[in-house]
Amino acid sequence: MAVAELIDRKRLGGRLTRAELHALVDGHLRGDVPDYQVAAWLMAVCWRGMSPDELADLTMVMAESGRQLDLSSLGQLAVDKHSTGGVGDTTSLVVVPLVAACGVPVAKMSGRGLGFSGGTLDKLESLPGFRVDLSAEQFVEQLGTVGAVIAGQSPELAPADGKLYALRDVTATVASVPLIASSVMSKKLAGGAPIIVLDVKCGRGAFMQTESEARELAEAMIAIGQAAGRIVTAFVTDMEQPLGSMVGNALEVRQAVNALRGSTDSPRLLELARVLAAEMLLLAGAAPDPEGAHHLIARALRDGSALAKLRDLVAAQGGDPTPIDRPEQLPTARLRRAVPASGDGYLAVVDPLAVARAANRLGAGRERKGDSIDPAVGVELSKSLGSPVTRGEPLAVIHANDDARLAEALALLAGAFVIAPEPADPPPLIRARMSAEA
Amino acid sequence: MAVAELIDRKRLGGRLTRAELHALVDGHLRGDVPDYQVAAWLMAVCWRGMSPDELADLTMVMAESGRQLDLSSLGQLAVDKHSTGGVGDTTSLVVVPLVAACGVPVAKMSGRGLGFSGGTLDKLESLPGFRVDLSAEQFVEQLGTVGAVIAGQSPELAPADGKLYALRDVTATVASVPLIASSVMSKKLAGGAPIIVLDVKCGRGAFMQTESEARELAEAMIAIGQAAGRIVTAFVTDMEQPLGSMVGNALEVRQAVNALRGSTDSPRLLELARVLAAEMLLLAGAAPDPEGAHHLIARALRDGSALAKLRDLVAAQGGDPTPIDRPEQLPTARLRRAVPASGDGYLAVVDPLAVARAANRLGAGRERKGDSIDPAVGVELSKSLGSPVTRGEPLAVIHANDDARLAEALALLAGAFVIAPEPADPPPLIRARMSAEA
Repeated sequence: MAVAELIDRKRLGGRLTRAELHALVDGHLRGDVPDYQVAAWLMAVCWRGMSPDELADLTMVMAESGRQLDLSSLGQLAVDKHSTGGVGDTTSLVVVPLVAACGVPVAKMSGRGLGFSGGTLDKLESLPGFRVDLSAEQFVEQLGTVGAVIAGQSPELAPADGKLYALRDVTATVASVPLIASSVMSKKLAGGAPIIVLDVKCGRGAFMQTESEARELAEAMIAIGQAAGRIVTAFVTDMEQPLGSMVGNALEVRQAVNALRGSTDSPRLLELARVLAAEMLLLAGAAPDPEGAHHLIARALRDGSALAKLRDLVAAQGGDPTPIDRPEQLPTARLRRAVPASGDGYLAVVDPLAVARAANRLGAGRERKGDSIDPAVGVELSKSLGSPVTRGEPLAVIHANDDARLAEALALLAGAFVIAPEPADPPPLIRARMSAEA
Repeated sequence: MAVAELIDRKRLGGRLTRAELHALVDGHLRGDVPDYQVAAWLMAVCWRGMSPDELADLTMVMAESGRQLDLSSLGQLAVDKHSTGGVGDTTSLVVVPLVAACGVPVAKMSGRGLGFSGGTLDKLESLPGFRVDLSAEQFVEQLGTVGAVIAGQSPELAPADGKLYALRDVTATVASVPLIASSVMSKKLAGGAPIIVLDVKCGRGAFMQTESEARELAEAMIAIGQAAGRIVTAFVTDMEQPLGSMVGNALEVRQAVNALRGSTDSPRLLELARVLAAEMLLLAGAAPDPEGAHHLIARALRDGSALAKLRDLVAAQGGDPTPIDRPEQLPTARLRRAVPASGDGYLAVVDPLAVARAANRLGAGRERKGDSIDPAVGVELSKSLGSPVTRGEPLAVIHANDDARLAEALALLAGAFVIAPEPADPPPLIRARMSAEA
């Protein structure tokens, strides 16, 4: 099979068969198909898109390129949860123990933070000793014993995605619905959970800036899941402002712990966590209806079982669980500086990208792979979109360990806020709930 | 400058500056920019096209990637001629000596035949001893002494095109108007001739199948020439049937020699040669008007000076000129076989691709670079489009050196002809004459 002919067919808007996609993608992984041919094909996919059938075939080929976890030994349905990446989005740290505490095993594979979006693994590493690199055997075992696991993507799972992603990153072929959908879903399929709940962010702090783009991505991922026999629900959720009030690794762990203790400090984070958790419980059959699911969730928050599950998860992965009960033991930054409001009015913009950039400058995130991270630093937002503000009042507090970086973050944050004379309603948090037609 | 950002801009339909194109294309030539990034950019160019400014910048960058010939020492304007490639198209072998015999130096750089289109260099190598690989110094010197030169593309000229073309060939990015136009024109610009006459073929035997595609390519090349200060005329000409009646290397040399001797055996070849030659003479200022140009052409054919110029060119490049005067000394094939008409009627199709494939099977062309060529073999067409035919009458004669290949060529040629009950006019030879607006 001549690879140039496959590229040419996609270039002209045609589709490749599963065998052809296997020759291309698996051939690339094995080194038989050179990067330059795959790069041309990737750009042709950006151009022409993929039919649902072709996309499902591609994703399956990627999922089957490495090991595939078998979770059947659990004896019950496990769920997985994935977010396309946002700012101040510590939902997984709330949802995973919460759902597990309600009796449904949660098998969560997470990534590192890169660019503007934070990474669950980086947050958990604020806890001394926490190990994110579990073997497949350890992963499945902990799922059985603790009922919850959050680990790094194993390089054994969907290795074709790893190689494709590295190439997409340097060939400007990241921004493509089928390529994003196949990248996410190939790892979810290889991860083995029969139930998958997706959180597709949209807005100025997300990869998908508009709701229609986010819906398109959600639809593509749902169709892949359906073709692979998985149960998938996707929520399109707002990323016009940071989700929680904390942006930074230890700050977000603290916020998640507070939420699991019932704090309503961050109502948007708590609302999203409840919505996602309820969906996971319903799909897993742990609750007969939404009311039942929300009842289970309220109880797990109230009786401390959700918090206890986080403690168990941290301990099982070698971390020190003490800060779960004494959050003041989490790393804290040396310097604090308030960002004052420049005038009176209502917050019309809280730009999540500007907040993320400020946090990254402080050392909370990576601009490049391999950059080191300071767990203590970050930005604590005092106000959310639509709030009334008065001149001089703090809009945010910067947590820093370095004076020069503090100054840079301050400058970046100055551009993050817009104050308008009239109030406007912030966009709704949950934009859409989508699932395959029965 | 991050290459991925340049690719991304083109992906989104934007344009790159000349400095950015230089970084990309020259960086690729030097090995600083990897093939996979260039491949993604090439596919993005296929997708988004290029503005005239961007295309001129790209072509200039490619032309400046190597040596550029300086023909100013000639003391008069030299002309170049280029065809996008057709079947039975031996025009250059007629036009180059004809125009030179009228006093205008012709600096022609040619390619090898590849795929269905024949190559002027392969035809000339039917003459024992003929050398196509002249140095730049030899090329310019012969232009001064003989006034005509036909040599192979020097690898020193537009080397960026050579590297890009090799990549396009394996990444399905050949079929793109800006990429074809920049490839052709970068070599023409580096070749140094201030006047360029282009023959853009259209029809089933050409890369551009429709007249509108051919016009688009012609316009792009004219705009590049204008931006580079060259005088360019492009003709869009018919390739619905082979141009001349001979397809094969020595056969086409013989046909060119016959045409230079005034034979009207192949009226379409002669008509095209006259049209192109007249344009070259007019643009070079050798004739005041078309009538004057055609007068010069008729005289050069009649008085033998055009034929003498071909003899001089062959001798200057080390070839044996005897066959110019005794064409029976050209290589001839051992086997002849007529292809009979399958019925009565009028020739409605003479498929140039089928004829070319038959000739290639006989050994006249290359399916892959490096294939060897048999100068003697080929196909001699007895009839042209629209001719009346009677059952059993020969439509073509196959010239072969191998029985098995003869049988294969016969089978291929059987599909080349369609006989219809009613006559239809063949398409006009000259579809359009295009040049830059003054």
